[in-house]
Amino acid sequence: MPDMTIGGSKLARRGYSFDEVAVAPSRRTRDASDVSLDWNIDAYSFATPLIAAPMDSVVSPITAVTLGGLGVPAALNLEGLWTRYEDPTPLLAQIAGADDAEATKLLQHLYQAAEIDLGLLRMRIEQLKEANITTVVGMSPQGTTALAAVAAQAGAEMIVIRGTTVSAEHVASHDQALNLKKFIHDLDVPVIVGGCATRQAALHLMRTGAAGVLVGFGGGASHTTADVIGVRVPMASAVADVAAARRDYLDESGGRYVHVIADGSMGTSGDIVKAFACGADAAMLGTVLARATDAPGGGTHWGAEAWHEELPRGMRTRVDQVGSIEQILCGPSSSADGTVNILGALRKAMATTGYSDVKEFQRVEMVVTA
Amino acid sequence: MPDMTIGGSKLARRGYSFDEVAVAPSRRTRDASDVSLDWNIDAYSFATPLIAAPMDSVVSPITAVTLGGLGVPAALNLEGLWTRYEDPTPLLAQIAGADDAEATKLLQHLYQAAEIDLGLLRMRIEQLKEANITTVVGMSPQGTTALAAVAAQAGAEMIVIRGTTVSAEHVASHDQALNLKKFIHDLDVPVIVGGCATRQAALHLMRTGAAGVLVGFGGGASHTTADVIGVRVPMASAVADVAAARRDYLDESGGRYVHVIADGSMGTSGDIVKAFACGADAAMLGTVLARATDAPGGGTHWGAEAWHEELPRGMRTRVDQVGSIEQILCGPSSSADGTVNILGALRKAMATTGYSDVKEFQRVEMVVTA
Amino acid sequence: MPDMTIGGSKLARRGYSFDEVAVAPSRRTRDASDVSLDWNIDAYSFATPLIAAPMDSVVSPITAVTLGGLGVPAALNLEGLWTRYEDPTPLLAQIAGADDAEATKLLQHLYQAAEIDLGLLRMRIEQLKEANITTVVGMSPQGTTALAAVAAQAGAEMIVIRGTTVSAEHVASHDQALNLKKFIHDLDVPVIVGGCATRQAALHLMRTGAAGVLVGFGGGASHTTADVIGVRVPMASAVADVAAARRDYLDESGGRYVHVIADGSMGTSGDIVKAFACGADAAMLGTVLARATDAPGGGTHWGAEAWHEELPRGMRTRVDQVGSIEQILCGPSSSADGTVNILGALRKAMATTGYSDVKEFQRVEMVVTA
Amino acid sequence: MPDMTIGGSKLARRGYSFDEVAVAPSRRTRDASDVSLDWNIDAYSFATPLIAAPMDSVVSPITAVTLGGLGVPAALNLEGLWTRYEDPTPLLAQIAGADDAEATKLLQHLYQAAEIDLGLLRMRIEQLKEANITTVVGMSPQGTTALAAVAAQAGAEMIVIRGTTVSAEHVASHDQALNLKKFIHDLDVPVIVGGCATRQAALHLMRTGAAGVLVGFGGGASHTTADVIGVRVPMASAVADVAAARRDYLDESGGRYVHVIADGSMGTSGDIVKAFACGADAAMLGTVLARATDAPGGGTHWGAEAWHEELPRGMRTRVDQVGSIEQILCGPSSSADGTVNILGALRKAMATTGYSDVKEFQRVEMVVTA
Repeated sequence: MPDMTIGGSKLARRGYSFDEVAVAPSRRTRDASDVSLDWNIDAYSFATPLIAAPMDSVVSPITAVTLGGLGVPAALNLEGLWTRYEDPTPLLAQIAGADDAEATKLLQHLYQAAEIDLGLLRMRIEQLKEANITTVVGMSPQGTTALAAVAAQAGAEMIVIRGTTVSAEHVASHDQALNLKKFIHDLDVPVIVGGCATRQAALHLMRTGAAGVLVGFGGGASHTTADVIGVRVPMASAVADVAAARRDYLDESGGRYVHVIADGSMGTSGDIVKAFACGADAAMLGTVLARATDAPGGGTHWGAEAWHEELPRGMRTRVDQVGSIEQILCGPSSSADGTVNILGALRKAMATTGYSDVKEFQRVEMVVTA
Repeated sequence: MPDMTIGGSKLARRGYSFDEVAVAPSRRTRDASDVSLDWNIDAYSFATPLIAAPMDSVVSPITAVTLGGLGVPAALNLEGLWTRYEDPTPLLAQIAGADDAEATKLLQHLYQAAEIDLGLLRMRIEQLKEANITTVVGMSPQGTTALAAVAAQAGAEMIVIRGTTVSAEHVASHDQALNLKKFIHDLDVPVIVGGCATRQAALHLMRTGAAGVLVGFGGGASHTTADVIGVRVPMASAVADVAAARRDYLDESGGRYVHVIADGSMGTSGDIVKAFACGADAAMLGTVLARATDAPGGGTHWGAEAWHEELPRGMRTRVDQVGSIEQILCGPSSSADGTVNILGALRKAMATTGYSDVKEFQRVEMVVTA
Repeated sequence: MPDMTIGGSKLARRGYSFDEVAVAPSRRTRDASDVSLDWNIDAYSFATPLIAAPMDSVVSPITAVTLGGLGVPAALNLEGLWTRYEDPTPLLAQIAGADDAEATKLLQHLYQAAEIDLGLLRMRIEQLKEANITTVVGMSPQGTTALAAVAAQAGAEMIVIRGTTVSAEHVASHDQALNLKKFIHDLDVPVIVGGCATRQAALHLMRTGAAGVLVGFGGGASHTTADVIGVRVPMASAVADVAAARRDYLDESGGRYVHVIADGSMGTSGDIVKAFACGADAAMLGTVLARATDAPGGGTHWGAEAWHEELPRGMRTRVDQVGSIEQILCGPSSSADGTVNILGALRKAMATTGYSDVKEFQRVEMVVTA
Repeated sequence: MPDMTIGGSKLARRGYSFDEVAVAPSRRTRDASDVSLDWNIDAYSFATPLIAAPMDSVVSPITAVTLGGLGVPAALNLEGLWTRYEDPTPLLAQIAGADDAEATKLLQHLYQAAEIDLGLLRMRIEQLKEANITTVVGMSPQGTTALAAVAAQAGAEMIVIRGTTVSAEHVASHDQALNLKKFIHDLDVPVIVGGCATRQAALHLMRTGAAGVLVGFGGGASHTTADVIGVRVPMASAVADVAAARRDYLDESGGRYVHVIADGSMGTSGDIVKAFACGADAAMLGTVLARATDAPGGGTHWGAEAWHEELPRGMRTRVDQVGSIEQILCGPSSSADGTVNILGALRKAMATTGYSDVKEFQRVEMVVTA
């Protein structure tokens, strides 16, 4: 529903970023200890409404276990270094140590020098299963046909299909395009798919049978999609629009609730709060977790867009290391910038505004600021 | 009354900060000497519409007396260093001298290493009473049950209850929550309570019997509530909304006038002027007074949010020292940035626009700027 | 006519600065040589629609003659250094050479150490008359009663009364307030008076019989009125509003055309163009001329607000010296930033949009930008 | 159609720049290999919807051939150094090497020290024709009468008339003004003319018989038109408005389709994408190509406005050298900032949003951002 004119007959909508909105207090407050952060999706229950992004700078087999133990499912990227190399640890160190000017070339080289090894892939999944955490894996839409069934067979319990823009209707003249609806129907495990950023696109994704849809563009703080291809929908509006699609689909499907998972532009706990306020059921975290001293990125962060052979649309960025994964999630904090004690901040935000869980909090009043 | 859509069905209101608004001249001007700055609340009369914030960097027993002598009631924080330590002077110096990186940890330590001592508390209040100024004390909502009656008994004449967000309806399953209405009714002394930021929340606070409500989030320039928990209502809009609640309540109560006291985001005399223009009856000052050479913060400033054990939501910030308390309030000034001669600036603002007191000035025309 | 709500029932108007607006081309273009810049006010005709501001950093007896020769009437400030000191040249050099931190104190000292000397005042006016230029003088509203008649008698041909905000209705209990209408009626010479910034205030000023009204706050780029007293109306909107008052008054007076003179916020030729586009008949220049190598400010610039004894509301600012007065006005230019060849730029702006004089150009289409 | 009030009765439209808008994904995606970038104008077909600007820092006889070979027609400036000097190579090096402070003076000198030599002009055109590329030449409106017929006779196949603002109705009392309509009618070759920035102005230009109109102000990233003469229309709105004029004219002419060519403010591939999204048929590139290591500007960039004798309205700016012309256009890229692999980015943008050519892509949904 466009509401402004750029010029002539070109209509547009005003899109708001998290920086432009804020949560307003209500007339009630509540004890933080009375707030629940539980998240239930498909058959799975988690103690937090968070999921770690399938990015090599965030999720390794080891951090997946750490995160899982803290209630955060973590998606291991099945197209990343861990399925291409037996031991990617020295490569991660090399990436973290590279000059800014050389980083893109290094990523392009490392991710193209070795193919995905299905044996390694199965081994990584087994490793996760042994740790007794919910096994979540990530892949690109392009990789889905080749990898998803293998991963499911190897024991993956949830699959995240994540790209810059994923649509339910991919048109291709040469290849056989992925039919998401059939694919998801045939698969045994629940699928989370995205990014999408508009109500229409989200509605079509929901109709594929996905358990959740990602709102965003897949590259987090490190992507440059807007500069390179001019595509951008500010996240507060994108989340609110996709939440509206959830309601549309709930009605049309006679009661199927598809989870809306904000993915990107959330650099602080305050941003995550705003995502929930706009209607998200959960938040996929990249940068926030890449700041951990025990994150595989070692103080750097990058997404899949950054290693594209011909048209990279992201960069390896540097992030401050502010504490361990556990401290970032659970505190205590000695800083006041929203980077540490994320779960404490979520509880405090809901308590301050008088709400008791994420679903209720989606109704909180909001303010648009300058 | 939301007036815009973030996306989908998520409505929001546009909130304006003091930076975005300004006062417009009218067709009249007036002599500054004909302007009155008097402020009458409950049984008390003050020569200025200002009150000093209950923050250790601003109000000590000594500066409370200095401020009182200049017509500015000053709230001593009963949960701060002065009720925890016999002589906090060296600790204040230690805080002022700490590195930025270490300041939060030091605050967390100092405020948690010693309990509040009710004997010391009574002694501080007596000290103020001996100076023959109106004795004002401050506390958090959490501390109110334990401290308010003791303070009143010791002779406090006005109590400020100040937190990030204070509601008339706190929901708690574990503790016995504070019933503000009953509490204020049972107490002998007038109570100022806040912060609040919306019309509904303010109206409920007014119904508790408070003499005044604070508009804001309690942490002034040094708080990071927006980054950490995503909560923010820009001050110009918040003050105007709460002023509307004052009018609602005036009608519903059959004539009880509850004072609206702007608290925060006022770094210059120009900002204070804008608070009055938006409908405030008085302004609670933190940063402006922390800039005094004789302020206890010694060139630094912090609020209660900054020493939270697990989730600090404020920082010890540095402020320029621009003159003595007396010079900051009364001039003369040799700078032109709105930090010195606050009272002269307030008089000049009203004179320039043709108004003769704060109540009249609340009607002045305003402009929204970029 | 307020069009937005800050909050509650507090209405406001959106005010635009010159930075936020621009001129749009039309379907016609024109030769620059066919554009007229003539300005006729009262009985006087000038070759440019510009007037130099009564500021000591801009107009001295010598630069008044230079400017007059180039078609720019220049107002000598009768309350400045030239009527207080026999030879202010060394004092001007002292001001130009002072450290930023000391400048305000020095101004306060120099302007208060010597009284205005009526003998000197008469001598300065005679000096200007001998040069055969239109003799224009400036004074504050406060100084008008004492100085205006003396100046007129000494031969001043036009009087500029310039203050932060000048109203037709000044209310004062102690002094006898200046009755502008009677004052202007009794005086022989045309009066330009301001600043004003709103339609109502301008209309009242027009009713005093003034030949022109100044739109602005009297301190140009160096004033800090917004920071100190919170008063501001962005100039594009202020000029457009006062131009509307000109039309109101033209009708109500049965045809008296009062000139609208933009005063302030015009740092480049582009800004001056926008002032005309918003409806100004002429522009009063401060900063633009203070940039001259032969300006008395010697690379610095200040207004009367800067030397206020107790509440200075302006600063001595530094400006780049970009060329002689003649070069700044007439070119040629080797820079491309709108600081040199002001008259060439005005002609080019009107030519590019197809207009032939300032009055016509007031109809040009405009755009609001980010 | 003005939609806001600056003040009084001064109406204005809100104009959006490319920075303020973005493209929103749709519900479809597509393979990048299925996207066509073909551009057909008049009798000519090109493999890209791009044209190189007639600027000496971008197009030389040699780069015109390089660009032509890559599918980008390149307009050689017939009023630049190549028609004034037999060998401008050392002069280009001198310009690239000049200090910022001296650059404008140097440009003024070099472009005025030698007249345009018609013999050289013919030789340059022959040189281009021999290379078997479509021969495109550029000139100013002022130079058109003298140069266009000569150029056409020498074999130019397309003529670009490019100025800050070009109107169909130039009013001049002294000279014989160019009658564009008659001029274009009499000429054998297709003409592209501009800049224009509004619907009315564009419609009048279209009625002259031009094959295409340029939207913009002719100086690209290096012009300072807004500072110097206050004229500006942000590009996203300008392109959308001129695209509306194309539709108006299509109807009124009974089917003549005039190409809308965005010219300026496109520093990245993302900006070019947005130009198409707003309705452009093609994009004229300056800065993007000046960044080539083999561009004649040698790391610097300037337009015709920069060498104006009396009122320069542009500067010689410095640009980063990011790759060869071929690499900038076709990749591969090792940066992620939208400066390299422009054609890949255009294809990816359309693929991501599910469109298959530029004409279809003009319908894409857009978002206005902060």
